[in-house]
Amino acid sequence: MDTTPPTGSVGLVSTSTVRLFTADAPLHLERGGTLGPVDVAYETYGTLSPKADNAVFVCHALTGDAHAAGFHEGASRPGWWDNLIGPGKPLDTDRFFVICANLIGGCQGSTGPSSTDPETGAAYGLRFPVLMVRDLVEVHRALVKHLGITRLLAAIGGSLGGMQVLQWAADHPDEVANALVIAASSRLTAQNIAFSAVARRAIMTDPNFVDGAYAQAGVNPDTGLSIARMMAHITYLSEGALTEKFGRAPHPNRQEPGFGIDFAVESYLDHQGQAFLERFDALSYLYLTRVMDYFDPFADACALDAVRESPVKWLVLSFATDWRFGTDHSRRIVKTLEHAGQPVTFREIPSSWGHDSFLLAVEPYHATLRAFFDRAYEEVAP
Amino acid sequence: MDTTPPTGSVGLVSTSTVRLFTADAPLHLERGGTLGPVDVAYETYGTLSPKADNAVFVCHALTGDAHAAGFHEGASRPGWWDNLIGPGKPLDTDRFFVICANLIGGCQGSTGPSSTDPETGAAYGLRFPVLMVRDLVEVHRALVKHLGITRLLAAIGGSLGGMQVLQWAADHPDEVANALVIAASSRLTAQNIAFSAVARRAIMTDPNFVDGAYAQAGVNPDTGLSIARMMAHITYLSEGALTEKFGRAPHPNRQEPGFGIDFAVESYLDHQGQAFLERFDALSYLYLTRVMDYFDPFADACALDAVRESPVKWLVLSFATDWRFGTDHSRRIVKTLEHAGQPVTFREIPSSWGHDSFLLAVEPYHATLRAFFDRAYEEVAP
Repeated sequence: MDTTPPTGSVGLVSTSTVRLFTADAPLHLERGGTLGPVDVAYETYGTLSPKADNAVFVCHALTGDAHAAGFHEGASRPGWWDNLIGPGKPLDTDRFFVICANLIGGCQGSTGPSSTDPETGAAYGLRFPVLMVRDLVEVHRALVKHLGITRLLAAIGGSLGGMQVLQWAADHPDEVANALVIAASSRLTAQNIAFSAVARRAIMTDPNFVDGAYAQAGVNPDTGLSIARMMAHITYLSEGALTEKFGRAPHPNRQEPGFGIDFAVESYLDHQGQAFLERFDALSYLYLTRVMDYFDPFADACALDAVRESPVKWLVLSFATDWRFGTDHSRRIVKTLEHAGQPVTFREIPSSWGHDSFLLAVEPYHATLRAFFDRAYEEVAP
Repeated sequence: MDTTPPTGSVGLVSTSTVRLFTADAPLHLERGGTLGPVDVAYETYGTLSPKADNAVFVCHALTGDAHAAGFHEGASRPGWWDNLIGPGKPLDTDRFFVICANLIGGCQGSTGPSSTDPETGAAYGLRFPVLMVRDLVEVHRALVKHLGITRLLAAIGGSLGGMQVLQWAADHPDEVANALVIAASSRLTAQNIAFSAVARRAIMTDPNFVDGAYAQAGVNPDTGLSIARMMAHITYLSEGALTEKFGRAPHPNRQEPGFGIDFAVESYLDHQGQAFLERFDALSYLYLTRVMDYFDPFADACALDAVRESPVKWLVLSFATDWRFGTDHSRRIVKTLEHAGQPVTFREIPSSWGHDSFLLAVEPYHATLRAFFDRAYEEVAP
């Protein structure tokens, strides 16, 4: 097998882990309580400049991880945002030092509900504390400090990633010069919450959930987790995209009419549900969807006080066919930031792919990001 | 308790049952095979005219039943379309003889997968045959004949009900003078199928589904069926309606933050899921959602040959915020009918409530139905 990374790739990469908080010096959580130790899995691409002024932090979405670009040893597929990050790409690793970290509450190397609770010696399960977006950001900030960086040239993220960027730049504008908030929301709607509520219900009513102690019981709520993923996937794509990809095409191995997999779209969802089981944890799904439900930063009238004193350059993007966090969500963010005197560039990107567009190399989208990063680079170019 | 039916109600009603096909003279199914005996539960309101020319058949949707109007003895809630059907209402029982029958494959008195299979003496379960819309219509036709009616003045239905009307009038235009097709589709999209596929998955992976033999096992797939219903309910309402009803309001009995019922919309969905268990059968949910997936009458180039010779007067209605079977679906029906030379009245009704609007007394909707029925009545008025 030829494992030479293709041109334009950051090449072979590996994930590092660092302990950023300990039991003695724990992370203080927004809702009260503490968490420690906190380990964080992260990757970096490119080279930090001598002045440490070219760092870009990538915040991942609900089911992402630290592996945003390049190839792990022996892997045939690159990181999840490899079309964006690399030499010569819009987020150009010849210019920028790019950092991506797995979220706490997640399951790809950072401390989460399936990590060992030092108080019990077993997995936290539902004893893991409920998190807020601000808690995720506090851990990112500790990592950035650990890497010797005091100010990010930019932070970028889509969906839940964009929420982290919004919270971070609003709270600490001196730490984020440019904030890219993509296909995000500052306030989930009842419909958004409803979809996640049903997904959580499917997970928690799976007999193999065992009140969150499934690891100790030696089982896994595969059924509930795959149903949650199947349902979520419907909301990640536009209706038009599903029609274009599948329409009413029959599944090639269609059996007798009945309740199996008759249509191609059923096969696709089945595959998405099954593949998800290999890489995601049911408890992480609960914790991180709830983080999104609770996110409502502008409910606090003082939310933008810090940034009012020290403006950030914002890029807010939505996708025309996104019906999960559509343009209405982005417009609300833009309006609120502009009322706080922030310079905001906003674009609704034409794309037929719905919410998932933020992960794709949609031409006008990448062109917009490239222009924004080029401009940001002028602030620090040698 | 005062059980006097309110003014405008058809009053106290009860459901009748009739055996329309027997094991010896069974129903021949579109996909081959037979079903018999076939019992049908139905209700009627109003009086059949001496010429038997004032009958209107009401076709119910996925989870409806024969009890469309009036009150059952002791009940505090009327039938599911009581706002439409009654003396002086748009479907005026002082003028029309209204018939509504529970679908075969259903679970409210008509033969369905939980009925006894004469071959085994146990419930059919998954041995019940896969049905098509045309099979549902054949049973309606047999009931109409049984009632001494050769031609309906009108057939009306919303969602799956509208699909039955479309099939019936297209196949047998001499039996249906006026066809009212509301919030329906002639061809589900991949997204439509996807939502039902996940719902079926939730039901069939419930350990209490027992391969469809749950009744014999003395259990019921409550968990899967309630998840299916919760998910479907999200699609029945517009995003705006959910926002207007619930927004981000907390549930009044909100507990500690976590994964219970924190938001009002979660409580609503939970209630919908639980209430559904009291009145609906999991196997019926499988069979009747699949009926909808398979419905694609215009795929047959000869589908409209009969109606081309003998036009029907069509009323096709959609609701502006319906994202399950939105205006695109209705427009496709209208275009196809018009290409076949049919006189079609089409309106997109302004309503903020989404797909569920067809069940509600939305003013411009009921006004349109009233005008159409008034005009139809002129054809037969004494």
